[in-house]
Amino acid sequence: MGETTTTKQHHQPLSGNDMPRFGGITTMMRLPLIPDPSELDAGFIGVPLDIGTSNRSGTRFGPRQIRNESVMVRPYNLATRAAPFDSLTVADLGDVATNPYSLERAVDSIEAHFDRIAQADCRPVAMGGDHTLTLPILRAMAKRYGPVAFVHVDAHADMNDLMFGERISHGSQFRRATEEGLFDNRSVVQIGLRGSGYHADDLDWARKQGFWVVPAERCWHRSLEPLMEEIRKRLAGKPVYLSFDIDSLDPAFGPGTGAVEPGGLSLIQALEIIRGLRGLDIVGCDLVEVAPMYDTSGNTALIAANLLFEMLCVLPGVAYREAPAPSTFRSDLPEEWT
Amino acid sequence: MGETTTTKQHHQPLSGNDMPRFGGITTMMRLPLIPDPSELDAGFIGVPLDIGTSNRSGTRFGPRQIRNESVMVRPYNLATRAAPFDSLTVADLGDVATNPYSLERAVDSIEAHFDRIAQADCRPVAMGGDHTLTLPILRAMAKRYGPVAFVHVDAHADMNDLMFGERISHGSQFRRATEEGLFDNRSVVQIGLRGSGYHADDLDWARKQGFWVVPAERCWHRSLEPLMEEIRKRLAGKPVYLSFDIDSLDPAFGPGTGAVEPGGLSLIQALEIIRGLRGLDIVGCDLVEVAPMYDTSGNTALIAANLLFEMLCVLPGVAYREAPAPSTFRSDLPEEWT
Amino acid sequence: MGETTTTKQHHQPLSGNDMPRFGGITTMMRLPLIPDPSELDAGFIGVPLDIGTSNRSGTRFGPRQIRNESVMVRPYNLATRAAPFDSLTVADLGDVATNPYSLERAVDSIEAHFDRIAQADCRPVAMGGDHTLTLPILRAMAKRYGPVAFVHVDAHADMNDLMFGERISHGSQFRRATEEGLFDNRSVVQIGLRGSGYHADDLDWARKQGFWVVPAERCWHRSLEPLMEEIRKRLAGKPVYLSFDIDSLDPAFGPGTGAVEPGGLSLIQALEIIRGLRGLDIVGCDLVEVAPMYDTSGNTALIAANLLFEMLCVLPGVAYREAPAPSTFRSDLPEEWT
Amino acid sequence: MGETTTTKQHHQPLSGNDMPRFGGITTMMRLPLIPDPSELDAGFIGVPLDIGTSNRSGTRFGPRQIRNESVMVRPYNLATRAAPFDSLTVADLGDVATNPYSLERAVDSIEAHFDRIAQADCRPVAMGGDHTLTLPILRAMAKRYGPVAFVHVDAHADMNDLMFGERISHGSQFRRATEEGLFDNRSVVQIGLRGSGYHADDLDWARKQGFWVVPAERCWHRSLEPLMEEIRKRLAGKPVYLSFDIDSLDPAFGPGTGAVEPGGLSLIQALEIIRGLRGLDIVGCDLVEVAPMYDTSGNTALIAANLLFEMLCVLPGVAYREAPAPSTFRSDLPEEWT
Amino acid sequence: MGETTTTKQHHQPLSGNDMPRFGGITTMMRLPLIPDPSELDAGFIGVPLDIGTSNRSGTRFGPRQIRNESVMVRPYNLATRAAPFDSLTVADLGDVATNPYSLERAVDSIEAHFDRIAQADCRPVAMGGDHTLTLPILRAMAKRYGPVAFVHVDAHADMNDLMFGERISHGSQFRRATEEGLFDNRSVVQIGLRGSGYHADDLDWARKQGFWVVPAERCWHRSLEPLMEEIRKRLAGKPVYLSFDIDSLDPAFGPGTGAVEPGGLSLIQALEIIRGLRGLDIVGCDLVEVAPMYDTSGNTALIAANLLFEMLCVLPGVAYREAPAPSTFRSDLPEEWT
Amino acid sequence: MGETTTTKQHHQPLSGNDMPRFGGITTMMRLPLIPDPSELDAGFIGVPLDIGTSNRSGTRFGPRQIRNESVMVRPYNLATRAAPFDSLTVADLGDVATNPYSLERAVDSIEAHFDRIAQADCRPVAMGGDHTLTLPILRAMAKRYGPVAFVHVDAHADMNDLMFGERISHGSQFRRATEEGLFDNRSVVQIGLRGSGYHADDLDWARKQGFWVVPAERCWHRSLEPLMEEIRKRLAGKPVYLSFDIDSLDPAFGPGTGAVEPGGLSLIQALEIIRGLRGLDIVGCDLVEVAPMYDTSGNTALIAANLLFEMLCVLPGVAYREAPAPSTFRSDLPEEWT
Repeated sequence: MGETTTTKQHHQPLSGNDMPRFGGITTMMRLPLIPDPSELDAGFIGVPLDIGTSNRSGTRFGPRQIRNESVMVRPYNLATRAAPFDSLTVADLGDVATNPYSLERAVDSIEAHFDRIAQADCRPVAMGGDHTLTLPILRAMAKRYGPVAFVHVDAHADMNDLMFGERISHGSQFRRATEEGLFDNRSVVQIGLRGSGYHADDLDWARKQGFWVVPAERCWHRSLEPLMEEIRKRLAGKPVYLSFDIDSLDPAFGPGTGAVEPGGLSLIQALEIIRGLRGLDIVGCDLVEVAPMYDTSGNTALIAANLLFEMLCVLPGVAYREAPAPSTFRSDLPEEWT
Repeated sequence: MGETTTTKQHHQPLSGNDMPRFGGITTMMRLPLIPDPSELDAGFIGVPLDIGTSNRSGTRFGPRQIRNESVMVRPYNLATRAAPFDSLTVADLGDVATNPYSLERAVDSIEAHFDRIAQADCRPVAMGGDHTLTLPILRAMAKRYGPVAFVHVDAHADMNDLMFGERISHGSQFRRATEEGLFDNRSVVQIGLRGSGYHADDLDWARKQGFWVVPAERCWHRSLEPLMEEIRKRLAGKPVYLSFDIDSLDPAFGPGTGAVEPGGLSLIQALEIIRGLRGLDIVGCDLVEVAPMYDTSGNTALIAANLLFEMLCVLPGVAYREAPAPSTFRSDLPEEWT
Repeated sequence: MGETTTTKQHHQPLSGNDMPRFGGITTMMRLPLIPDPSELDAGFIGVPLDIGTSNRSGTRFGPRQIRNESVMVRPYNLATRAAPFDSLTVADLGDVATNPYSLERAVDSIEAHFDRIAQADCRPVAMGGDHTLTLPILRAMAKRYGPVAFVHVDAHADMNDLMFGERISHGSQFRRATEEGLFDNRSVVQIGLRGSGYHADDLDWARKQGFWVVPAERCWHRSLEPLMEEIRKRLAGKPVYLSFDIDSLDPAFGPGTGAVEPGGLSLIQALEIIRGLRGLDIVGCDLVEVAPMYDTSGNTALIAANLLFEMLCVLPGVAYREAPAPSTFRSDLPEEWT
Repeated sequence: MGETTTTKQHHQPLSGNDMPRFGGITTMMRLPLIPDPSELDAGFIGVPLDIGTSNRSGTRFGPRQIRNESVMVRPYNLATRAAPFDSLTVADLGDVATNPYSLERAVDSIEAHFDRIAQADCRPVAMGGDHTLTLPILRAMAKRYGPVAFVHVDAHADMNDLMFGERISHGSQFRRATEEGLFDNRSVVQIGLRGSGYHADDLDWARKQGFWVVPAERCWHRSLEPLMEEIRKRLAGKPVYLSFDIDSLDPAFGPGTGAVEPGGLSLIQALEIIRGLRGLDIVGCDLVEVAPMYDTSGNTALIAANLLFEMLCVLPGVAYREAPAPSTFRSDLPEEWT
Repeated sequence: MGETTTTKQHHQPLSGNDMPRFGGITTMMRLPLIPDPSELDAGFIGVPLDIGTSNRSGTRFGPRQIRNESVMVRPYNLATRAAPFDSLTVADLGDVATNPYSLERAVDSIEAHFDRIAQADCRPVAMGGDHTLTLPILRAMAKRYGPVAFVHVDAHADMNDLMFGERISHGSQFRRATEEGLFDNRSVVQIGLRGSGYHADDLDWARKQGFWVVPAERCWHRSLEPLMEEIRKRLAGKPVYLSFDIDSLDPAFGPGTGAVEPGGLSLIQALEIIRGLRGLDIVGCDLVEVAPMYDTSGNTALIAANLLFEMLCVLPGVAYREAPAPSTFRSDLPEEWT
Repeated sequence: MGETTTTKQHHQPLSGNDMPRFGGITTMMRLPLIPDPSELDAGFIGVPLDIGTSNRSGTRFGPRQIRNESVMVRPYNLATRAAPFDSLTVADLGDVATNPYSLERAVDSIEAHFDRIAQADCRPVAMGGDHTLTLPILRAMAKRYGPVAFVHVDAHADMNDLMFGERISHGSQFRRATEEGLFDNRSVVQIGLRGSGYHADDLDWARKQGFWVVPAERCWHRSLEPLMEEIRKRLAGKPVYLSFDIDSLDPAFGPGTGAVEPGGLSLIQALEIIRGLRGLDIVGCDLVEVAPMYDTSGNTALIAANLLFEMLCVLPGVAYREAPAPSTFRSDLPEEWT
């Protein structure tokens, strides 16, 4: 960290060979801290927030723990050969200064913060923080890009009208977004919904808006690659925003969060979803609801850091390194396994 | 909680909009506490017990932690459209006052307690507590219903003859139940057995009684819906008791328990099993072996609370809400995903 | 728990000989749950709140964990021979339904809730929750009793003017209370203040109001009994409110809280303070800032439950049992040790 | 560990220079495992037991965790210059095979086990395990030595008549011991009693037997050396048994236990008590109620291991190394500090 | 434990009916501790080491925690009917005395230690400890057996050239092994590789050596039995060494380790891999990278203990007990489920 | 954080009113990160190191956790009225890039790093990390200032000759420093030594060098202010280095460390020691041995951050704000309490 810069350059994460991974100031992926989005193609940004949560609090420490654990993420994607730092200028933008005592004012400052990012043509990769934070981001996105296509991975629809009488919370923010016209409704897909609810129409209301609703049960025992192919077809050419709630995962795979529901996605499916977005025009994305106090090993934060890196790897403009010719390999393992 | 009642009515869980989920006295699912089973169609009941455990103790706090985490479970089942509180009178029956120092006397008081419940035609949904507790419940069930069909989901057969020279423990209780004739032997199925044991006949003894034994290995890489179809055929029309040991799950999915064994069921399969019992005459059920001290996030207890709610959802007489006509949906997602 | 009552009676905690301490529904000290204050002389009441916290959240679960651990507290005070349930009608009043998303509205509902209690002449013993909650309680107290004498045990003065631009938070609530005239300024004492601050006048502002400020350093290496004697003299005959922030304790003694500061009070001193209030007209009291996620053993909550019981033991009207004549003892230990 | 021996020799703990402290099989203090007491002057012995506990379980793992953490204890006592392995033959005797399901039978096997030790003139240093275990040890001691003088350090008197209707538990064992005449009543001292209780006579009953009762309050803000001088006078020449319940400590100093009570002893006072017994004829001793699941850092077990070593250091026959002549020191620090 | 022996005999784990599982000294699987490999066909051996780790430390306590949790593993394999203690002489060999301050000297002492084991024709089953430890074991293996076939299950290739400028670490040890000619390169298979890396050729370098590289992605959504069939064909008749890094598992299945990567193997696949090696000439094996401080429940260590037992079950010479004739079963469950 | 600077200025910690304490990049006390010591009067610097530890590892994460928790420390010292940022230029210097695999090379790079700091006349306030790190710092100090006076607060003398045969480790570093002549021997004081050891001369060797050795026992039940007065007299005018091992504290007060010993200092005494150094010419200082994995609440790190701030407050040149005239106070509390 440390050095600041005024001209665009391809920043590299600080190497584990220059500073041990357990040392140094913890920015996201050990990138430089550059608060000015105009210098960047994309930037990681923390939104420390938990006063929109209905039960377990603690997500206010999510960005910090994700950064702490992100020291293990290296700059190259072995599976997809993506090398985002070869072609994009990326840094850690720091955190939004969220009001700890007023959700309304916190939401406003998030919107203002992302307005600046969006207007600078920097693509935000946001780290939460409770899911309320996606509403002000979507407002900023819609101002810059118009109504967006929306890929929403979550255990919950977050489509309640009111929560404890309030219009804004981490369970109602997408009802508000829909009402405010922030979505291209025919290009909204919700993946992983499940569990218990209040009303028979908890999922049906969304379907009536034209959203694609993929309950978790539809994802059981299968690869999501075919689903992602459908989604890519539908969303091609549109500005796409991805919001990934870590509780979309089965609690086995992402225990450190507030509202776990059994029967969710696996990490394999999470990777299939994010990698399956490659080729779309992703204008922003987030990963939310990491609650460190329920994550004693730090692994949920470390998984989150990896998923955020995978998001970076599918942003437009990312370079992919070429694979060597298989003929250079002396291995004769059957192809299905290599 | 709070209000008591003397005439049957359909109690509803206290809503998260009336009292925040982190507030209030924690009964199971925030239902009223009604110790009298004669007022109820079904009731949750805690059996705080761990003096039948052979290794890790702590399940005595299982019922309390399940109740604490159950505040997140809402009254409607999004996947199956079950709405148990629409048609059944359900409450929290409180706990059995188990003797902390004498397993024999604890077992006797459990039997007496469940006798009262069974004789009142209230269907118990029991929360454990170590698995010894199922023996006295089965005794009460058999007195009321005759030998029962038995669905036993577990990593272990619990069919040892003696443990440390004792006839009753959480590893031998089903040998006793078999000897006492509490089972309809041709209608017993054990799912998820695995791991290491003492004798080559640990599983074979059960098979010789006519039990269906489904080792965990047979469940690998597949849906259990076909198995449940077989089971429904076999058990139809009989009084069925379900005993679900949380250690049937692979440790990834239910870490907070005492005797974990790798290679177990997933939460998806657990949901398939419980949902697959719909239509049978379930006269009682339990979920056992939640050990909070090994469950630092509380997630195992929260999962347990959800599985207990799923059990409630398949009791006889539960109402299911109708799905809206698909024509009211504007979504065109391929059907396999909706 | 469970039974409700309409005439005053001396409720007793459920005995550990009737229900093991690890069993049963967890009300405070296993008292009956009676939401109506008009039936009670004093009542424990939970205020689940953490959206007034400036750093670590999680105190919203404070009341629940205090209740869970309070099962160990027995009804008789061995040291002081207080037997509060012999002479007072006491129960658990339940929780205030605090708005999870709006601190302003949460504060208002707390005030309304304590208005009802104060007007019913029930003395509240409140369990928090972040320290913001004392402001609305003080408002209710002042409406009923006029400006109150105030014993404030805390690491922090909580006298900031604004926090993040807001007037109400857990760091500024007593500046507001002072401005609103809720205190009898010459009868305010703050004990245990210490640590780092923003301004040289952090403690001096209070002194200028006439408050007695006792920094932690003045309490080092000594008994606080002489201090309490001074305080009893000053406060005699006035309505007194006691607010005990668990972070007044040195972190060794109360680790499960948000804003620990080294060099604080010991538990011995905490007991000296509370026991030293005996004889004053305590109209209400609270213990705040228990944060269960930082209290992995549950001990901070258990300590809090004991301190709350000690508060109950010094309320006006509590009966004290007589000591037997020393002549009945066959022991001859030097008196200083008995 | 490993080597066994048939002739008495002065075993030494395995050095941290031969095997790193984090390596090797964990016997107590890394001594040899020698199950035969006839080879030893004194022996550490584990009593894994928690089915006598009234609330939190888990002390069954106490001996194991004490052994694990005891790897840090080195063979020489810097403060007292005791070098127990210079003059005594000491080893780890292993564990009593306690019945996990029957407290009665566990108690019987403990008694039989300690009979063998006592009859072999080996002095046991027992590691618990819940406090019930001291009753059968006292029975074995009384058979060998007659009624014993008894130093009982504890937060609780453990003098209840019945617990949940049972005569034997970790709250009633010393009522039984008194009734059975195992004590020299005029030589019993109980130190550290405090907290809440059931009856006004919880402490007075003991006083009526002639026991010296030293409530915790009498120990506040002072050294216990003068008390120990009184005790040494009273107990001189008698067979003395020491039972140290870790919950005698204030929860700050021994958090990993089941029944914490605020206002207890400090570790400094614990050391003063044990060191203050030097010169008495200690025939056996124990440290009980270490509950590892409430001891996330392992420190309570490590403290327990140190206290057990301090007990070993005051057994009769221990060698003390000479201090060098102060003249060999070049230091001129005022004597009160050296 | 305890007894030592000079002639080969088939040791049995101490039964849970003779000593409760929570009692006794914790050797691996409660086998005798026998440091002399010449008495054994196979032996468990701990290698406490973490100074080769690049990020999270703590694996130095891996062997101890594996032993502690191994008390739950019983001597018979229910799934495969393997009964290793019927035909092999197996014990716990204790730990290597690894230098805590010098990785070079620790590596040398590990090599010397395994030289003795290999030369005694005892097959080591090693418990780690960070993965650096496999390099000195491979050196000892190659001296005894020549270049070995190598089954490497891991998230990481561990094929870096230098780490922080050093040639030996837990990320570069197999580059060294390759350079030193310890492998039969055409018989090396690496399973489970994934995540982020430094260079495009992180996996390709291995392929160029002729290694079979099976990325985790190739293992998704499928059984590994067909892969193991390929591997058995390729490796038949050769001396095989198995190295299993617990981080090969998806973090859901083995959370207690240092370098977790999402999208890994399941425990089911881990069992398929180890069981799939049956019939090969396994000359040694290890399980590494268990880090207890990240394993709050102890479950990762317990899983590790089970996998180590499964390794024992596929060593050459293990007896398998016969299954009873299905005709003796009265069960009629469809065969696919039995 | 973020901005860098080339001219000396008085940096202020980022205020909690500008960024909530749970947000933002975590430098020490939220100061700017300025790696160049020539710009600073004093600087905090992390030394992530644990490969010098003899038992528990994990101190490599000490600096990171101290920084994380330091967000709570505010810029003004309420007790002493020190305002270090009014008069000194202070920042976070970042971490030393310590070799994770070679203690020798790590030690060398620490020395080189502190050489640069010392030569720039910047006073280092170091955060560890295991105690080995003080040796290379002392080497750098001695090069710049000559042999230093040394205040060593610790449970252990760290004066062993060899540990596991090695000359450098966290138990032998001060034997080396003595041999190398880094100390002004007549001005060395060691406070808090206690516990068990290997040899009778563990403390006597130091005394023979002329060191002042203050065993923990001498500190029991008393204020250390008189001791500090003696020390100030002895050390006046000399260059002083302070090394504070967190394990000097009793485990109650600093549980998150590796080598806890009962009977240590309280936090009150720790504050007395550090504040008692005011007026001396402190040329550098450190706080070491914070091990986050044993500090589940984070409180030990937070305490460490406070103690480091207290060290900053006694550096030469710190400004102290004036107290208002007592006449401006309307309080009449007896002076001994104000």
